[in-house]
Amino acid sequence: MGGVQEVRIGIVGLGRLGMRHAENLAFRVRGARLEAACALEADRVQSVCRDWGVPRGYTRFEDLLADPGLDAIFIASSSAEHCAQVRASLDAGRHVFCEKPLGVTLEECRDAEEAVARNPGSVFLLGFMRRYDSSYRRAKALIDAGRIGKPILFRGYSVDPESAIQGAIRFAPSSGGQFLDMSVHDIDLARWMLNAEATTIFAAGGCYAHPEFAAHGDGDNLAAFVRFDSGAMAFFLAGRTAAHGYAVETEVIGTLGTLRIANVPQKDLVEVLDSHGSVKECSQSFLERFEAAYHAEAQEFVDCIREGRRPGVTVQDGTRATEVAFAATQSFRRDELVRLTPLTPRRSA
Amino acid sequence: MGGVQEVRIGIVGLGRLGMRHAENLAFRVRGARLEAACALEADRVQSVCRDWGVPRGYTRFEDLLADPGLDAIFIASSSAEHCAQVRASLDAGRHVFCEKPLGVTLEECRDAEEAVARNPGSVFLLGFMRRYDSSYRRAKALIDAGRIGKPILFRGYSVDPESAIQGAIRFAPSSGGQFLDMSVHDIDLARWMLNAEATTIFAAGGCYAHPEFAAHGDGDNLAAFVRFDSGAMAFFLAGRTAAHGYAVETEVIGTLGTLRIANVPQKDLVEVLDSHGSVKECSQSFLERFEAAYHAEAQEFVDCIREGRRPGVTVQDGTRATEVAFAATQSFRRDELVRLTPLTPRRSA
Amino acid sequence: MGGVQEVRIGIVGLGRLGMRHAENLAFRVRGARLEAACALEADRVQSVCRDWGVPRGYTRFEDLLADPGLDAIFIASSSAEHCAQVRASLDAGRHVFCEKPLGVTLEECRDAEEAVARNPGSVFLLGFMRRYDSSYRRAKALIDAGRIGKPILFRGYSVDPESAIQGAIRFAPSSGGQFLDMSVHDIDLARWMLNAEATTIFAAGGCYAHPEFAAHGDGDNLAAFVRFDSGAMAFFLAGRTAAHGYAVETEVIGTLGTLRIANVPQKDLVEVLDSHGSVKECSQSFLERFEAAYHAEAQEFVDCIREGRRPGVTVQDGTRATEVAFAATQSFRRDELVRLTPLTPRRSA
Amino acid sequence: MGGVQEVRIGIVGLGRLGMRHAENLAFRVRGARLEAACALEADRVQSVCRDWGVPRGYTRFEDLLADPGLDAIFIASSSAEHCAQVRASLDAGRHVFCEKPLGVTLEECRDAEEAVARNPGSVFLLGFMRRYDSSYRRAKALIDAGRIGKPILFRGYSVDPESAIQGAIRFAPSSGGQFLDMSVHDIDLARWMLNAEATTIFAAGGCYAHPEFAAHGDGDNLAAFVRFDSGAMAFFLAGRTAAHGYAVETEVIGTLGTLRIANVPQKDLVEVLDSHGSVKECSQSFLERFEAAYHAEAQEFVDCIREGRRPGVTVQDGTRATEVAFAATQSFRRDELVRLTPLTPRRSA
Repeated sequence: MGGVQEVRIGIVGLGRLGMRHAENLAFRVRGARLEAACALEADRVQSVCRDWGVPRGYTRFEDLLADPGLDAIFIASSSAEHCAQVRASLDAGRHVFCEKPLGVTLEECRDAEEAVARNPGSVFLLGFMRRYDSSYRRAKALIDAGRIGKPILFRGYSVDPESAIQGAIRFAPSSGGQFLDMSVHDIDLARWMLNAEATTIFAAGGCYAHPEFAAHGDGDNLAAFVRFDSGAMAFFLAGRTAAHGYAVETEVIGTLGTLRIANVPQKDLVEVLDSHGSVKECSQSFLERFEAAYHAEAQEFVDCIREGRRPGVTVQDGTRATEVAFAATQSFRRDELVRLTPLTPRRSA
Repeated sequence: MGGVQEVRIGIVGLGRLGMRHAENLAFRVRGARLEAACALEADRVQSVCRDWGVPRGYTRFEDLLADPGLDAIFIASSSAEHCAQVRASLDAGRHVFCEKPLGVTLEECRDAEEAVARNPGSVFLLGFMRRYDSSYRRAKALIDAGRIGKPILFRGYSVDPESAIQGAIRFAPSSGGQFLDMSVHDIDLARWMLNAEATTIFAAGGCYAHPEFAAHGDGDNLAAFVRFDSGAMAFFLAGRTAAHGYAVETEVIGTLGTLRIANVPQKDLVEVLDSHGSVKECSQSFLERFEAAYHAEAQEFVDCIREGRRPGVTVQDGTRATEVAFAATQSFRRDELVRLTPLTPRRSA
Repeated sequence: MGGVQEVRIGIVGLGRLGMRHAENLAFRVRGARLEAACALEADRVQSVCRDWGVPRGYTRFEDLLADPGLDAIFIASSSAEHCAQVRASLDAGRHVFCEKPLGVTLEECRDAEEAVARNPGSVFLLGFMRRYDSSYRRAKALIDAGRIGKPILFRGYSVDPESAIQGAIRFAPSSGGQFLDMSVHDIDLARWMLNAEATTIFAAGGCYAHPEFAAHGDGDNLAAFVRFDSGAMAFFLAGRTAAHGYAVETEVIGTLGTLRIANVPQKDLVEVLDSHGSVKECSQSFLERFEAAYHAEAQEFVDCIREGRRPGVTVQDGTRATEVAFAATQSFRRDELVRLTPLTPRRSA
Repeated sequence: MGGVQEVRIGIVGLGRLGMRHAENLAFRVRGARLEAACALEADRVQSVCRDWGVPRGYTRFEDLLADPGLDAIFIASSSAEHCAQVRASLDAGRHVFCEKPLGVTLEECRDAEEAVARNPGSVFLLGFMRRYDSSYRRAKALIDAGRIGKPILFRGYSVDPESAIQGAIRFAPSSGGQFLDMSVHDIDLARWMLNAEATTIFAAGGCYAHPEFAAHGDGDNLAAFVRFDSGAMAFFLAGRTAAHGYAVETEVIGTLGTLRIANVPQKDLVEVLDSHGSVKECSQSFLERFEAAYHAEAQEFVDCIREGRRPGVTVQDGTRATEVAFAATQSFRRDELVRLTPLTPRRSA
């Protein structure tokens, strides 16, 4: 499995996260070969090609798509482009990795679902990287093994650090709102861990520190309380004002026990005892907190291609999380309960 | 302030908590003298009088009330008797401490309010003991000092240990439901810490482990999501199935920081490292967790009487917490949003 | 056991700790009656008598000793007076509680031992209050139950907060050195928990921040490594410069597990998440950390008198801890191994 | 820096740790190319070559050394072979990475030092991987920035899990004893963090659970108390019986604060609350705890070669740590203080 059968990958999108993906693909993912990089910024493409030895660079997605020497496309472009690039790449016979969110409308999500369906030979993986984090994986395994009994409540916080607030405000017009941008990971985790679908939602929140979000029907902190078809409940908090860092914290309470993941999102194993007391510093960004998970999901994508396996995350997971995020947004904006229509059963196993 | 002016107290109710109160009043509360004890169980009255040197014992509340040598009545009887005993004691010119809940109907609460209003010379303290716990007091002081900025979300869990489930099931018909019995403390804390009143509620939950609660329109785990008139939010979880112990945990998230109280309700400062990993045992009951708070609230009651002060907890706090608990129960039972009518402003300072 | 048979107590010494003891005895110790208070400072005696209703006050120990209405003497005077007061009180037929240290020389300790021996009807309790702390008690019970197997290493830190350094420097000439003043509690805990006696000691340390201690053959931080006759080891750190508070931390490593007590000496159950990360404040003084233990040891003293029991802490425990502290001091001063002569077996059970 | 100038590496030793190194070099170290693998076990060499695409395999070190297509040799063979292979590789013009320990005698260490000295063009890195762990790196940076003031005490525990005891017993005859095998990392960390050299040592310990170690002048748990030339102190615990896992824990106490690294060596960010209380599982092996550090040190080795830099860990660090480990062993065996002769100053910067 060594030198042969390497998966030849082209990446599109070289923002902060795209660069991390590219570097992983270039140097750390076993069985992967980063053959091409594409971004609007020609300078960035050039330096990636030169510094990391990537053979081909493009500034137009069409050119990347036309590159005959690629087995897979890794999509880390802006959210609005995801769906079209997913469809085009799949229909061009490529395997596809797509960063979250799957789409910015439900129509887009369904288009992507159809593209996946009509290309059964292609591996498709959506970047819900938390499922590849070792702590979340162990938590899921403990739940599946019955360690906490029947799940009662899932609680997921995803709050960006206040230090990143200026970027969040600039991004507000196109972010889709806190539930789509921040909670979508928690919604996916809740569906995965509860093995159930959301049915009823009530959301609230507002602008507690930064009035700029209001103009976009958004707030700097929103929360949603959700009932699932299994009877379990979920509570999501999405925000932008965490003082202590990248505050992604998850809890699952069951009838026999409770699991917490990153209750304190400590950055490492250092504790300082000084005049403040006992102090543990926290992770400051998604890149720091989920560094290993980004690596693991890329490895899983490549392994699935090489081994002919299907990833655990499906395109439907993307659609469903988006639906719930939209329903929560609607509940917040209209100040009313939102009830989701029952699905034909298609939840992930 | 030594030997003179001791407050002569009669207690009614010698259940598990009543015994603790009685012992505190008999031996540990400075300025208090436990002069009389009253309970339905004659044996228990006798042993308290004999073993703890309490001069007078009664088995009927009327006799306690008629005792001319008492300055104050300490009510630890069953919930259904609270309000009538509060009214009678106040109208008899006694200072009154009353265990929570203030009443089992809102009418009762309002009757109690009126009795307090027409007896301005009497000290009335409702047993929201958490306000006298050193951790909650420090948290409140930090909030008031602006340490966490503007409050965004209050989260309060009150889950009894699974080990006490049989008692909880027996108590279910008369408990008033999880929100009244368990969350009422959290509701009071939320009003106190957010300095705001609840306006909109959505509740859910069910019987995840113990179907017996369903017959009483109750569940073994319920949760409510609440919006307050300040814009802040609250999330309450009330339950009966905590595996790790008496799971009372509180969080207040603000724009500048987050406070957590008893995130792990550890029973002491011992940590065991063994084949399970790092293990901290938890408090197993309210008496264990709030031992010092029960002592402090009794001390505060006596100090208020001796110093002519008013306690921080008012009778209105009891009514308002009850209203919110009832609204949450209604939301759960009807599966609908409940909006509370605005109050004439009377929140506690 | 209520009003009758109360133990009538006189206290000598009304410093910071003496005041705490006096207040406990006056108001919170069941079965105790504080009948007399004695201190050099006449003003303090007066205010204690007036404010706390203590009937009789003295400024000379001889007068306290001559008070015929006392069953017990509670000694909280300065260390240099302990032994003489212990002897005189016992020989006057009183029960005696004595704050640590038992004495400032070994001769004094042996004199105290003899006084205890010749007054078998008197209860004698030495103020090793940690043995009455709920965390240490549970740890000891876990060890005795075999939970951690055979003890390998005891580690005890006792470091005062830097905020108290000026007092420590003033006290340095008469403190007996860090091992006697600070580690004596750890030495007692080690003997108690290991159920063994020290045999070999090597100590080191120095003045890392405060050169003033050097003039007294002392340092601001000293440590000793000790071998016990069971084969177990102990490591003691005694110091004055803890930034985070009153740093009393204990660990016992056994063949089947490890126990830690107050690894972080958190003052309560509050955790703050802010720009520093996750922060837990620490206890700032022995009065704060051991508030409940001081209460419990006084209660145990009174209960032993009333019930005709012997306390678990013996006068020999005081002597032996002092011997080890002196040996550690000698090792530090001479930079050499010190071997303790074997004892005729008299360790506590 | 991409495809060109890759460092061609041959590894010798394919045990548990060697396999991990080989896999890192083959797939995850940027700028590295694993060109050859050598081990006594021909099967293992074959499978590594076949599965990981390594071009050349050898079963004799001489053949690896004679391979003209290698820039560097990565030594992960058994301890007894380290020094000879270091010398031969350096003298053959190769860059050398060598797993700890540098040698099993001081003569060997000095031979290695000379070989490094006479090959100034070669990069030499000794596998003190903890220096490349993110937590230790941050701790070191905090110390250097003065965050904890002047160091007073370094405490380092290195205790293998009881679950690995059979291997430890088999390995006992050739391990060099607990101080050389386990504490050598702590000794290196102490020298690095205290920036000082050991001067006086007293060690103790024994066989608390496993008498088999006694035959080799060793114990299952040993501890050493060490004075450094800066006045700072260190306490090392080395053992084989940790119930909770791979118990590597470090503390540095300074005049202004205290640092702890892996006080609880938690394996991830999961916490379970169940009938045991709050439970955090721990890392179970060095490969688990230091996975990222093994990767980072290999990356640093390759980066140093490519960038013409010198690593922070020197061959002298290996010698000096070995000297201290030997002195501790001698102290334990002879039950006496051991004083180390002063060094001509050569401590690492």
